Amino acid sequence: MFSCVGYAATAADARLAPMTLERRDTGPEDVCIDILYCGVCHSDLHQARNEWRNTIFPCVPGHEIVGRVREVGSSVTRFGKGDLVGVGCMVDSCRECASCRTGLEQYCEQGFVPTYNGEDRQGRGITFGGYSRAVVVDQAFVLKVPETLDPAAVAPLLCAGITTYSPLRNWKVGPGQRVGIVGLGGLGHMGVKFARAFGAQVVLFTTSASKVADGLRLGAHEVVLSKDPEAMARERGRFDFILDAVAADHDINAYLDLLARDGTLVQVGAPENPLPVSVFSLLMKRRNFSGSLIGGIPETQEMLDFCGQHGITADIEMIRMDEIETAYARMLRSDVKYRFVIDMATMPAAA
Amino acid sequence: MFSCVGYAATAADARLAPMTLERRDTGPEDVCIDILYCGVCHSDLHQARNEWRNTIFPCVPGHEIVGRVREVGSSVTRFGKGDLVGVGCMVDSCRECASCRTGLEQYCEQGFVPTYNGEDRQGRGITFGGYSRAVVVDQAFVLKVPETLDPAAVAPLLCAGITTYSPLRNWKVGPGQRVGIVGLGGLGHMGVKFARAFGAQVVLFTTSASKVADGLRLGAHEVVLSKDPEAMARERGRFDFILDAVAADHDINAYLDLLARDGTLVQVGAPENPLPVSVFSLLMKRRNFSGSLIGGIPETQEMLDFCGQHGITADIEMIRMDEIETAYARMLRSDVKYRFVIDMATMPAAA
Repeated sequence: MFSCVGYAATAADARLAPMTLERRDTGPEDVCIDILYCGVCHSDLHQARNEWRNTIFPCVPGHEIVGRVREVGSSVTRFGKGDLVGVGCMVDSCRECASCRTGLEQYCEQGFVPTYNGEDRQGRGITFGGYSRAVVVDQAFVLKVPETLDPAAVAPLLCAGITTYSPLRNWKVGPGQRVGIVGLGGLGHMGVKFARAFGAQVVLFTTSASKVADGLRLGAHEVVLSKDPEAMARERGRFDFILDAVAADHDINAYLDLLARDGTLVQVGAPENPLPVSVFSLLMKRRNFSGSLIGGIPETQEMLDFCGQHGITADIEMIRMDEIETAYARMLRSDVKYRFVIDMATMPAAA
Repeated sequence: MFSCVGYAATAADARLAPMTLERRDTGPEDVCIDILYCGVCHSDLHQARNEWRNTIFPCVPGHEIVGRVREVGSSVTRFGKGDLVGVGCMVDSCRECASCRTGLEQYCEQGFVPTYNGEDRQGRGITFGGYSRAVVVDQAFVLKVPETLDPAAVAPLLCAGITTYSPLRNWKVGPGQRVGIVGLGGLGHMGVKFARAFGAQVVLFTTSASKVADGLRLGAHEVVLSKDPEAMARERGRFDFILDAVAADHDINAYLDLLARDGTLVQVGAPENPLPVSVFSLLMKRRNFSGSLIGGIPETQEMLDFCGQHGITADIEMIRMDEIETAYARMLRSDVKYRFVIDMATMPAAA
């Protein structure tokens, strides 16, 4: 075991603060990583504040991790000291169920082990995330990061990136398709970039007139203001695929109605309350309303390689570790373009 | 034009009664059919009573029609006098849109012309359905019925049959799959028969203990009482495909949770109110919630041919034309096994 400093929430109403935490020694299958950057996901805030009522305190958030390998275990062959690597939302799974065997660890039948606030499968306690100087992760859940990309802007790819990449790939989005992205936040801005890179005609739906120019800059061919009923009416029945990245309650039928026959709307944001779905809208054009959860390890690697080849990263705002509460507050106001990333060099040397 | 007798609703609160109605002369593309049997669909009742608020009175319901060809128009080659034929929910469509060109007339972008209570595309007035002695239909919307089958029991195939056959085919239900059918009524009992015929492992979900034996007789391998929480819990995550034929409001999440990863629940019943969908249930296993509407003409013919080859028909209760109001009352109590069919020989000779 070794000690390192992290930023932890010790209670739902406590501000995050430095804490000394223990990391396990590097086992045969392990990769020990010096963390360079960690993205700030909305779920970090939910869990730090116990809004999902399942937080185990102290809680060290962070699952968009980029760093360099400090050392590797004796059985590790794919990684070596100094390699640029990433860790996303998962650090383990059962590895035996049908989902795990097909590289869809996010749907592990026993439940994957989340990077933080999860119970280690070997009884080594509760996992601590990337708001930390270092982390030790089984090699099976470590990703190679292309050296050609800005490592800080890669961090959000590990959650926001793969969460949008995976459904666009699974539903085979590509040239000749008209694709809608709903919501321009951390997930949505990656959805726009990927859908454009895959060759689709991309239409961004946003409630904010202030985001129109940005939507076009990020790759959308068109931007529709979803509060404009006439603009929405013009889009009815025109979409092959819609990626809905809105986590707040919203009128899902307004978007289902935009789908063409046999079209699919995939929800990647997770609204707290059930969404009322008009069955009539599904019936009349054989539409599909679906969900998708992050992505598996092989697909996450595929995404990082794709990003390396196409020069794709997230648009980020870098923050110091001690600015995390301000970042959370701004995130709650959707005041971030489009992901905060913590510069781990700003972590205090001791708690 | 020629006159024939039908049974019509003249107002939302009027009992159906005999009425003399005019049918067009047999045009070059037309098939004139002497109706032998007409199935009684729940939507007949909805429209006779203007429950969808779009009924044009007088209304002659009926879209599960089986009869024999009286005469054919000069351009008709596929049908001849005396042929056993069927007509379902549609009698015309635009024939030019992408859906029509691929044989999916039910999704016609201009809207198909329903067999009754629809506006004729050539300005010939409002369509009258199968509660009638005769009907004249464009050959493109007439189906061949296998002579080997009981024609009365074929009638419900034209709506209840194709509505369940089409989604089971579209989502490629077959051997090795565990398939759920929700609700044992007119649609559900055909769903059980088709899913079994396609080689799937079929599980019927019903609220009625009294329907267990019938479910097994109709082809289900297992029957689960949906009011039994333990029985439902045992089925979680086990289904590749679920066909939900319940038209009443019900807890859709209880069935979505039964789907395995990448599973699909297709709603073919049309509940009046939006169904609250837990997005979490969709996300956690990449599940799909979809809808399907009847089926296209080529697929309806394919279904009838399949039924001929496999000896599949509906389970019916034959009624006299003057028993229609009693049949509606019993249908409202789900007291029918599993479709009423009107014997058109009981239609009065004059109104």
